[in-house]
Amino acid sequence: MSGRPIVFISDFGLDDEFVGICHGVIARIAPESRVIDLTHGVPGQDVVRAALLLAESLPYVPQDAVFLAVVDPGVGTDRRAVAVRTRQGAVLAGPDNGVLSQAWSRLGGAVEAVEITSPEVILPGGSHTFHGRDVFAPAAALLAGGMELGALGPSVEIESLARVEALEPEVHPGRLHAQVLGIDRFGNVQLTIRADHLEQAELADATVVQVRTVWRAIAVRRVSTFGEVSAGELAALIDSRGWLAVVRNGGSAAASLRLDLGNPVEVERPG
Amino acid sequence: MSGRPIVFISDFGLDDEFVGICHGVIARIAPESRVIDLTHGVPGQDVVRAALLLAESLPYVPQDAVFLAVVDPGVGTDRRAVAVRTRQGAVLAGPDNGVLSQAWSRLGGAVEAVEITSPEVILPGGSHTFHGRDVFAPAAALLAGGMELGALGPSVEIESLARVEALEPEVHPGRLHAQVLGIDRFGNVQLTIRADHLEQAELADATVVQVRTVWRAIAVRRVSTFGEVSAGELAALIDSRGWLAVVRNGGSAAASLRLDLGNPVEVERPG
Amino acid sequence: MSGRPIVFISDFGLDDEFVGICHGVIARIAPESRVIDLTHGVPGQDVVRAALLLAESLPYVPQDAVFLAVVDPGVGTDRRAVAVRTRQGAVLAGPDNGVLSQAWSRLGGAVEAVEITSPEVILPGGSHTFHGRDVFAPAAALLAGGMELGALGPSVEIESLARVEALEPEVHPGRLHAQVLGIDRFGNVQLTIRADHLEQAELADATVVQVRTVWRAIAVRRVSTFGEVSAGELAALIDSRGWLAVVRNGGSAAASLRLDLGNPVEVERPG
Repeated sequence: MSGRPIVFISDFGLDDEFVGICHGVIARIAPESRVIDLTHGVPGQDVVRAALLLAESLPYVPQDAVFLAVVDPGVGTDRRAVAVRTRQGAVLAGPDNGVLSQAWSRLGGAVEAVEITSPEVILPGGSHTFHGRDVFAPAAALLAGGMELGALGPSVEIESLARVEALEPEVHPGRLHAQVLGIDRFGNVQLTIRADHLEQAELADATVVQVRTVWRAIAVRRVSTFGEVSAGELAALIDSRGWLAVVRNGGSAAASLRLDLGNPVEVERPG
Repeated sequence: MSGRPIVFISDFGLDDEFVGICHGVIARIAPESRVIDLTHGVPGQDVVRAALLLAESLPYVPQDAVFLAVVDPGVGTDRRAVAVRTRQGAVLAGPDNGVLSQAWSRLGGAVEAVEITSPEVILPGGSHTFHGRDVFAPAAALLAGGMELGALGPSVEIESLARVEALEPEVHPGRLHAQVLGIDRFGNVQLTIRADHLEQAELADATVVQVRTVWRAIAVRRVSTFGEVSAGELAALIDSRGWLAVVRNGGSAAASLRLDLGNPVEVERPG
Repeated sequence: MSGRPIVFISDFGLDDEFVGICHGVIARIAPESRVIDLTHGVPGQDVVRAALLLAESLPYVPQDAVFLAVVDPGVGTDRRAVAVRTRQGAVLAGPDNGVLSQAWSRLGGAVEAVEITSPEVILPGGSHTFHGRDVFAPAAALLAGGMELGALGPSVEIESLARVEALEPEVHPGRLHAQVLGIDRFGNVQLTIRADHLEQAELADATVVQVRTVWRAIAVRRVSTFGEVSAGELAALIDSRGWLAVVRNGGSAAASLRLDLGNPVEVERPG
């Protein structure tokens, strides 16, 4: 029987051998399982970003996938290593810091959780610093090969699991109070606003919206693609991940709006 | 039946999740198909470079491969998404901007082409900005799984497909008039000259050639490997991709020759 | 029969197509073999580092793996291309510069070696500069598919193979004389000291050790994880690769200790 595929996300980067070693561990335990590297370029220790990326990937990865997430600022502390099963039958392994929580909640919610403690799972001589290799990759590979969740370790109360909250904007008629969710390397500013929020605030059909920060308010055009933005212009579009983004053609929207991660932003009908 | 392998090239880089998401889409549709990532480090929007890299890879990838090329400056405009079948039976999917053309012409020429429009192929709720995920990866995966080209959408006139021209040097006795094809991160200058051009110009056995730019002319040694070049010396060699390159040991040949992409260069018998 | 997996390490990086082309060659020859990319981020031409990384990966990769190592400063010179079989049955392919030697010695020692010269193995029209593609990837793929070592070329005396020496510290009671093995991008300093050396020098249970360079001597705490190190503090820990490392929270230990690759360092009981 072929193993289930494994979707793997981390902040390891690709300069070092960390990702390759985890691939080796998986290949040793689950030689038939395909590994899909979602990305290993999550900014260091950014649990929230990894949690969202993992959840947003769900429509685009195999439905029988096992999820392996290793963004783990608490490695070596007493944070738990956990595996979770959802109502829809998905299984996920990672540190108990919320990195799995957005995904499991979109997969029907967690119905079973265990702490990964079994010496049958954890590699002997395991280090204090590389649980990706010693704890999480073996757990994901064993799950991919068909091991029951309960064989990984003792049950954990689902209510006790750490969660990353979905950042939802405040919706008012003609106005959304949101935050900066992310800034990419081009300076595009992702807001905590999705298309359905624009509809709820009756802003979905606005051809121009006003973006208000603590520093300034500026009206920008709603466009569909970067190609429609004139040189130097600021504009707003729904990006490929589904978030409303403020972009600037040939420059950094973040810099021109003086915006940083977590800053409040109002998006409203101009006037 | 195992799926055909997919050779994937893009300018997505590996810092973000774009490549991983495309891998997920492929694994969902064609779980048995192996993906060979030729490179995702094509310089942003450099269609010509991607077209050449894809064509040059042909001797080194499985002969039954499906080709997936996503370098797509026109995403969101009305450029077509196409799939092409060649005389030799290869199939390729990508934007209709020429990125596939060098490969299909080396594979016997295009004999069938379609525009990818079928709602059976394109992912629902597809974005305007990420056709790699929503259009090209599903098309390549379906082709790898055995779908006929005609099922992807309506026929397109082969003559109407965009092409990237193979840049050929002008061949004269004892002289080639060429252009700068590429400059790598070490400053090595790749010219639009291959070994057969040197033979045609009776320069194949020259132990020294003169390289003439608009700024200067300089005689350089023909060598076989970097190892033969003295510190600071400029030299000419056939690189691993098969192009004549001007290199400098311990410095940038491009900088010392003041050469940039597309600049004309004469290579001639020193005189 | 499914092919054996291939563990691949190189200094090619991922910006170019070199790794992808090698994957293509492998997929063409051994379509059933899984490739595990240990890392392609080995610092350019650092044969010692690649040799150690490959050897350290052994507990974490499939036991039937074929090893492919391409860190090859001598490409194009008369250094030999070799394949080696170990007492435990592992096979390895790479340049004869020692890059394979740490791995084969941990796998029971080399019992058979050949020079890769067969025209059945080497790709036709092979370049002088890209033996990863033309020599080593085909050799590894053929071995993964079941070819006997002897079919790759003529026997080579095992004693004639190049070796990278394991750098061992001098062990004294209460003192280790070691060297800087590596410095990572955060400035963490890896020493040529493993846990068993600390035991031999009766330093295993020291809660504080003195680190002496040519410039200074400083007492640092032994910790288990980065999380225990205070802001600005220097400390010593066994890293995930098993080496004693001197680290600094929020700064470069290498810079503050003025240490560079190969520098001598004493680790001793503070006095």
